[in-house]
Amino acid sequence: MRGRNGETLALDPQELAKRHPAEVAELLHRLPEKEAVELLRELYKVRAAADSLEEMDPDEAAELLEELPQREATAILSRMEPDDAVDVLEELPRDVVEEILGHLQTLDREKAEILRQLFAYPPDTAGGLMSPEHVALPADITVHEAIERLRRVAAEAETIYYVYVVNEAGRLLGVLSLRDLVFAKPSTRVREIMRPEVVTLRPEMSAEEVAQAFDKYGYLAFPVVDEAGKLLGIVTMDDILDTVILRDTEEMYKMVNVPREERVDTPWYESLRLRLPWLYINLATAFLAASVVGAFEGVIAKISALAIFMPVVAGQGGNAGMQTVTIVTRGIALGEVPPGRALRILAKEVLLGLFNGLAVGFVVGAVAFVWKHNPFLGLVAFLAMVGNMVIAGLVGASIPLGLRALGLDPALASSVILTTFTDTLGFFLLLGLGYMLQGVL
Amino acid sequence: MRGRNGETLALDPQELAKRHPAEVAELLHRLPEKEAVELLRELYKVRAAADSLEEMDPDEAAELLEELPQREATAILSRMEPDDAVDVLEELPRDVVEEILGHLQTLDREKAEILRQLFAYPPDTAGGLMSPEHVALPADITVHEAIERLRRVAAEAETIYYVYVVNEAGRLLGVLSLRDLVFAKPSTRVREIMRPEVVTLRPEMSAEEVAQAFDKYGYLAFPVVDEAGKLLGIVTMDDILDTVILRDTEEMYKMVNVPREERVDTPWYESLRLRLPWLYINLATAFLAASVVGAFEGVIAKISALAIFMPVVAGQGGNAGMQTVTIVTRGIALGEVPPGRALRILAKEVLLGLFNGLAVGFVVGAVAFVWKHNPFLGLVAFLAMVGNMVIAGLVGASIPLGLRALGLDPALASSVILTTFTDTLGFFLLLGLGYMLQGVL
Repeated sequence: MRGRNGETLALDPQELAKRHPAEVAELLHRLPEKEAVELLRELYKVRAAADSLEEMDPDEAAELLEELPQREATAILSRMEPDDAVDVLEELPRDVVEEILGHLQTLDREKAEILRQLFAYPPDTAGGLMSPEHVALPADITVHEAIERLRRVAAEAETIYYVYVVNEAGRLLGVLSLRDLVFAKPSTRVREIMRPEVVTLRPEMSAEEVAQAFDKYGYLAFPVVDEAGKLLGIVTMDDILDTVILRDTEEMYKMVNVPREERVDTPWYESLRLRLPWLYINLATAFLAASVVGAFEGVIAKISALAIFMPVVAGQGGNAGMQTVTIVTRGIALGEVPPGRALRILAKEVLLGLFNGLAVGFVVGAVAFVWKHNPFLGLVAFLAMVGNMVIAGLVGASIPLGLRALGLDPALASSVILTTFTDTLGFFLLLGLGYMLQGVL
Repeated sequence: MRGRNGETLALDPQELAKRHPAEVAELLHRLPEKEAVELLRELYKVRAAADSLEEMDPDEAAELLEELPQREATAILSRMEPDDAVDVLEELPRDVVEEILGHLQTLDREKAEILRQLFAYPPDTAGGLMSPEHVALPADITVHEAIERLRRVAAEAETIYYVYVVNEAGRLLGVLSLRDLVFAKPSTRVREIMRPEVVTLRPEMSAEEVAQAFDKYGYLAFPVVDEAGKLLGIVTMDDILDTVILRDTEEMYKMVNVPREERVDTPWYESLRLRLPWLYINLATAFLAASVVGAFEGVIAKISALAIFMPVVAGQGGNAGMQTVTIVTRGIALGEVPPGRALRILAKEVLLGLFNGLAVGFVVGAVAFVWKHNPFLGLVAFLAMVGNMVIAGLVGASIPLGLRALGLDPALASSVILTTFTDTLGFFLLLGLGYMLQGVL
């Protein structure tokens, strides 16, 4: 699939249909859009389009589907795993979704209903991640009958390694692994060997909480149940691996204000369009810091040595603050910060800011004293450094904790907000103290 | 497990042994070390210590084991899954590892041999992640015989959902899922239903490449083979979920220079000890930038307005550079940057720096002109901004690409290196241009 020739050779849809869908998905990703749409229509004819689209990024899959005639797009979506199909629907304009679901209603009423229900859950919740295609069995059949039933549904189920036992109302009674079934006596009742204590998820749980459950218990799948204990669907580990990678990418991007749509192979003009707004936002906050410097221009003109320590005081505050932001944001994402501990974490970071400030401020103050032979310049640099480090700890912890308390994403634009504080207040402390002590500087 | 009372009540080891090991691991993690060691020894008596340690962070598990008598530590390690046991060994001092393995040799020669072999692979490779406890079957037995064999080894294998078919020399011939076995006729030969085309890993592959394979193919496990095709072990998806979360955490930490050992609940004096060295390194580079400002102190004393634009030029360069660093580092981690594309990515980021610089520089220049009524100050600010943005793109892409080319981790201390360049060169451009044009400023 490397060079031009390789690609042309590999474009026979019959041949491609035999390859792993992930490899076909990679090919679709690399082709120019027009050729990718052509190939997708060819794959559709040999019924291999749905599998490949399941393996693509949902937003890319949606872009390709939008270019197809609606009849073909609907047919492909109806053949995809429902949880993957819904991920693609989330990326399409609302009216296109309604048209497709309306069309699907006439083709496959049941499928349309399933997709509609899944579509109602936000995509970053257990409900949005789950697949309805699990295996549910009654408790009173035998192991032999259970294996027979499994054989019939195996092709359609998302996993058959976990089998769920439910009552007539669909309430979850227990779980069995395929392993349990295979090694049990065929005449045993399912009820006797099922494990009644099941770790379940609720549909409104966040993707983070779901990832934590996988991380903690190491299971391959979890059942999702409503408040009455009715089994709604399952979330499998491969769903969550994608989600974790995407979550972490977005967390890193947000921390340094990179647009979430961008990847390393985004064309440059597209990158420009995406990044420039963030740089302008940064610029606005930089001018806020600059206006503080502007207000003290008279002091700088008299005591130009202060300008030397401006980048040191502001930069160290920014660095220490980003350490705090990163550790707190990551702790929240990994579920290590219960709301009751928020105040203790804030207090710890302020205390750390004080001690880090004393340690760093002492060096900065000493350098200022030795360089310019003025103990008062050393004192100003020391005090500004300590003050800015305390501010960095306070603001660095408050941003993610505060965003979470407001129900927002803790990683949201953290570095812009942080450096606005550490720059503006850092300059204000340094130059303000310089102004007050200008008689002796 | 919340309050003091709850904890005391829950500390009965008999009761704890019935809980999910992940919950016991969480309790061990929250207890003060002395109490955790006590509890571990109690769990050891009821043979429940190994399961809980498997669920802990390896470095924490190692700390607890170091406090135990060597005989108990060795016994617990020998009962852990070998891949988890080796993760713990990696965290122990070399001489302790040798003592433990020597001791284990006398207890369970085979187990000691397995651990020694796994220990030889670096922990962040497929070899270091793999478990030797897979199920391997000859090709000529029947499905019925295969299921009987599975029943015997099921308790010890890491997974029985994939079964590997090997020849007498241990060479991998094909793979079967438990699903294939359960639904095949009992008299069929394994050879007839196995899939001969297996996606395999090599032991020297990096954890990143392994994570990419899981992400791409969506399988639950991959076999690891040597160059002769001999089956060495398997890597399962739950191993890689931990690895991905840890990799992403470390990537974020390195980008902003947070020590990798720190978590949100690290005690403050420990955090101080861990973070302060990074702040001192930052301080050294900040003084480098400050010395540039110091060299131009005379210009600043004459044209104090230049001080206003120092934080703007340096800060924007740092922000734009971190966007580049983050996108390139993340692209490398997700396997989207083949070495042949490195130059194209570098060129793109430099071009972007130029255009972003023109767009941002125009605003900065205009503000400088309007604020200070001096077109030359505007010109200086504009040129310094454009130059620093180009440097930010060049350096921001070169750091991760260069670190990788040197065989180092692309995320290593990226922000310190980047801001050293963007601050130092940003100040140099602004103040140097100011110096050259001081006659008209």
